Amino acid sequence: MSQAQSSRESIPLPTTAIAVDQVAEAASGAAHWFKERTPDERSELLEAIAGALDAVQVDAVRIAEEETHLGVERLRGELARTTFQLRFFGQVLTAGWVAPLVIDHADSQWPVAPRPDLRRVLVPIGPVVVFAGGNFPFAFSVAGGDVASALAAGCPVIVKAHPGHLRLSRLVADTVAAALQRRGAPSGTFQLVVGDEAGRAILSHPCVRAAAFTGSVRVGRMLFDLANRRPVPIPFYGELGSLNPVFITERAASERLDAILDGFLQSFTLGNGQFCTKPGLLVAPEACSAADLLAERLASNGPQRMLSDAIASAHAARCGELVASDGVRVVKQGQVTEDGVTSTIVEASMAVMRSEFANLTAESFGPAAVVAVCSSHNEMLELAGLLDGQLTGAVFGDEDDPAAADLVKVLVERVGRIVWNGWPTGVAVSWAMHHGGPYPATTSPLTSSVGASALARFLRPVVFQGFPDRMLPDAARDENLAESAIVRDGAWQPARLAADHR
Amino acid sequence: MSQAQSSRESIPLPTTAIAVDQVAEAASGAAHWFKERTPDERSELLEAIAGALDAVQVDAVRIAEEETHLGVERLRGELARTTFQLRFFGQVLTAGWVAPLVIDHADSQWPVAPRPDLRRVLVPIGPVVVFAGGNFPFAFSVAGGDVASALAAGCPVIVKAHPGHLRLSRLVADTVAAALQRRGAPSGTFQLVVGDEAGRAILSHPCVRAAAFTGSVRVGRMLFDLANRRPVPIPFYGELGSLNPVFITERAASERLDAILDGFLQSFTLGNGQFCTKPGLLVAPEACSAADLLAERLASNGPQRMLSDAIASAHAARCGELVASDGVRVVKQGQVTEDGVTSTIVEASMAVMRSEFANLTAESFGPAAVVAVCSSHNEMLELAGLLDGQLTGAVFGDEDDPAAADLVKVLVERVGRIVWNGWPTGVAVSWAMHHGGPYPATTSPLTSSVGASALARFLRPVVFQGFPDRMLPDAARDENLAESAIVRDGAWQPARLAADHR
Repeated sequence: MSQAQSSRESIPLPTTAIAVDQVAEAASGAAHWFKERTPDERSELLEAIAGALDAVQVDAVRIAEEETHLGVERLRGELARTTFQLRFFGQVLTAGWVAPLVIDHADSQWPVAPRPDLRRVLVPIGPVVVFAGGNFPFAFSVAGGDVASALAAGCPVIVKAHPGHLRLSRLVADTVAAALQRRGAPSGTFQLVVGDEAGRAILSHPCVRAAAFTGSVRVGRMLFDLANRRPVPIPFYGELGSLNPVFITERAASERLDAILDGFLQSFTLGNGQFCTKPGLLVAPEACSAADLLAERLASNGPQRMLSDAIASAHAARCGELVASDGVRVVKQGQVTEDGVTSTIVEASMAVMRSEFANLTAESFGPAAVVAVCSSHNEMLELAGLLDGQLTGAVFGDEDDPAAADLVKVLVERVGRIVWNGWPTGVAVSWAMHHGGPYPATTSPLTSSVGASALARFLRPVVFQGFPDRMLPDAARDENLAESAIVRDGAWQPARLAADHR
Repeated sequence: MSQAQSSRESIPLPTTAIAVDQVAEAASGAAHWFKERTPDERSELLEAIAGALDAVQVDAVRIAEEETHLGVERLRGELARTTFQLRFFGQVLTAGWVAPLVIDHADSQWPVAPRPDLRRVLVPIGPVVVFAGGNFPFAFSVAGGDVASALAAGCPVIVKAHPGHLRLSRLVADTVAAALQRRGAPSGTFQLVVGDEAGRAILSHPCVRAAAFTGSVRVGRMLFDLANRRPVPIPFYGELGSLNPVFITERAASERLDAILDGFLQSFTLGNGQFCTKPGLLVAPEACSAADLLAERLASNGPQRMLSDAIASAHAARCGELVASDGVRVVKQGQVTEDGVTSTIVEASMAVMRSEFANLTAESFGPAAVVAVCSSHNEMLELAGLLDGQLTGAVFGDEDDPAAADLVKVLVERVGRIVWNGWPTGVAVSWAMHHGGPYPATTSPLTSSVGASALARFLRPVVFQGFPDRMLPDAARDENLAESAIVRDGAWQPARLAADHR
C-alpha cells in the first residue's frame, strides 16, 4: 500500500467547531460560483463525479466491505447504482420538467388587473447539509441521492459522514471534491464534516439553507427539531423509519403462499434486514401458518454480520423486546454470535397487535419480522387502518378480488409507494419514483429522496416582474426559451433539447 | 332586515373544545368523499363557490366595509379578485402541469435493475387548516387563495376566522358551505372555527394534515412551532411579514425622481399601508432629498381609518418606536385621531441603518416608511446584502446601468419576487406568480400562497408500483392518459383537454 493510499484510508477525526465555521463560510462562498453554472455545466460536473467514482471502484468496494460487511457483490451493485444516479440527475436537468420556467407575458386584459411580464425561475436554495445514512454506504451516503440532487440543483453540499464507514466516507469525499475542483469548482462546493457535534453545529449554522437526512426516527426527529428551532428555520428533508407492511389476502394465500413466503424471506433479509424498505410486518390469514412456514425456510440460513457491533447489539436488544412482548408467539428466536446474527420471527394475533401496537409496529433494524395473523378480512383492514405513515405498503392479491382493492384503498392513505404483488426492497432510480411518505416515514411528506423529483427540494422560486430581456437570467431570456422546458401563459412547451433526450 | 339576514350577520362565538373535535372529525370524514372527486368535479365546486359569492356581493361588501373600513371600491375589487382566484384554480386543474402524473413503464433494460411499472399520482394531503388574514377580508380570508388552492387539491378546509371581520367571515363561510352542500359535499368539506384557542386546538388535532397562515411574524412563528412540535408534524405554510425594500439608483433618481416618489407614495399608502407587500423601506441616494419630497407630497393627505382600533394603536406604538430610534430624522410624524391615521416618514443614514438595523427593518403595519439615504452605490449594495428574507424587492434603474444589475443580483438572493421599475403591491393571480420568499417572509421558502403553484402545497405523491390497469386510480389508467398532463418515461406530454384551455 502506497503512503498516499494509506493516508487516504485513515479514519478522519471529528471536525472542530472552528473548522465547522470555515466549512460553512466556504460553502457560502462557493454558492456564488455554483449558481452561475448552467444546467449543462451541472450535468458535466455530475458526470465527472460519477467517472471519478468508477475509477476508484476497487479501493472503494474493498474499504466498504471492511467497514460494513455487506458483501462485495452487493457493494459493487450499490456503487453502480450510485454513479447511475449521479448521471440520471444530469438527464433530469436536461428533461427540464421537474424545474420548469413559468412565463406569463404582460397582458393588459388579464382579469381583475393588468398583468405585468412575470418569469418564474428556480434558483439554488444555497448550501445544503446532508446527513449520510449508514446502511447504504454508497447510495445514501457521501455521493448518494441527496448529494446528487443537491449538486444537480446547484447547491454546495456539506456531508456529515456516517460514523459506520468513515474511511470510505473520506475516500469518496476526496474523490468527489477532486473531480469538482478539476472542473474549476471552489473547494467549498463539496465538503465533509465528521462527528455528531459537528453535525449539529453545521445544521445550526446561518449559512446553511436546507438539510437532508437518512436514518432513524429518533435521530431524525432530533435534527428536524433543531432545524425548526433555528432563528431562521430551514427545510429539513428527513427520511426516517418505516415498517413497510405486506398484506396477503386470503385468496392469494390459498393460491400461492409458498412463492409469497419465499419472496418475503428474501426481501426482509436483504442486506441483513438493514434496508429502510425492509418489510418488517407480514399480515397474513390465520389459517395459512405463514409464520411457521417462514421459520422452516429460515432454519438453514446461517448468521450474517450486521453493519457494526453496535448495530448488532441494538438489534439484539430490539429482538429481546419483540420476543418478550405480551402475547406474541416466538416462532424463531435469532442468535447473535461472532459470525453475525440470524433472523427472528414472532407471531401476533389481532388481539395482541391491538394491545401491543406501538411496540410491535416500531421499526426493527435487522433481520426481524412480525407476522400478524388475522382471522378475517375485516381484521386486516382494521390493522391497515391503524398504521402510521410508511415509505411503502404491499398487497398480495388478485385484481378481481375486492378484498385486495379494500386493502389498497386503506394503505394508499398511509404510504408513499404502494406495491402490487411485489416487494418494497429495490427502489428504482427513475422518473416516477417517490421514496417518501407521511410522518414518521419522512418529515416532509410531499418530497422524495429518490427519483427525478428529489431535485426540486433544493430549488427556490423567484419571479422576475417587468424585467427587460437583457437583465433576465440567461435561461429566461426570449432568445433562449426554445431550449428550456417552460410553461408559457399557462400552456406547457417542452424543451427542444429534451425532445429526444432518451 | 329579515330575521334570516340578521342571524347571518351576528358575530359568531368562539368554537368550544368539543366543537373543535367535531369539526376535525367531520373534515376527516369529508376527506374520503372529496378525494374521489375528479379534477373536473373540483373545478365545478370552485365555480359554484365563486358564483355564490358573486350573488352575495352587496351584503358582503357592506359588512366588510363596516368591519374593516377599507372602502367599498377596494372591497368590490378584492371580491372580484377572490372569485376570479377560485375560478383560476379550476383552470389550473385543467392545465394539469402543476400536478402532473408521472409514469414509467416497466423496463427490463433500465440501468442497475429492471424497473417495474411506476405511476406517480398526487393525492390530497387531507384536512387543511387555514388561518385567515385580516388585511384582505376576501382575498386572503375565508374564501381566499389558501382556501381555493386547498379545495382545488381536494382537501377539506377548516378556516380559523380572523377576529377583525367575524360577521363577514360567517357570511362567506355560510355561502361557501351552502354552495358545496348543494353540490353534494358533506358538511365537513368546509368549516369555520372562531377564537385563538380553537385555532391552536385545531392545528394540533391529529386529523389535520397541513396548515396555511397569513399574518405577522410573531403569530406565524408561534403557530409554525406548534405545527412542528406535534407528535406528527405537518407542513405549515406561513406567509409572514416583509419589508419589501425599494432601491433607486443614482441615475434613476437624477432622471425621474418625481415619478418614482409619486409611485412610492401610492404604493406604501395603498390600503392604508396594510398590505403584506407594502414597501416599508425606500433606499435612495442621499443627494436627492427623497424623504422631504415625500413628506411634501403627503402633507395634503387626510387621515384614513385602520382595519381596527387595536391595529391603529399598534401602528401608533410602532411609529413611536420608529421616531424615537437613535439617529433617525423624523421627516413626517403621523397622527392618530378618531378619523384615522396619517403617514409617518423617518430618514436614516447608512450609519444609522447599521446601528439600528433590526428596529428600522422590522415591518411597520400601516402607513409608515423608512427612507434610507446612501452616500454611494456601495452603501446601497451593503444595505441590500444585510436584509432578511422578503416577499419582494424592487429596483428603479436603467438596463444599461451596472449599478441596477448589481442591486438585482444581491436582492434575488433575499426575495421571492423581484420587481423592475415597478411596485410590489398588486400581486397578479397568474400562472407564474410566486408570492413567497425566504424566512421570515415565509416559513416555507419553496412554496407560494398565490398563483398556480399554490395548489401543489396540498398534494402528496403516491407511487403505484406494478399495478394492473383496472386497479389504478382512474386518471392513471392507460385509457385515460390522453386526458391528463403526464410525464411518460421522462418525456412531457400535455393533456388533450389542456391543449387550448386558454
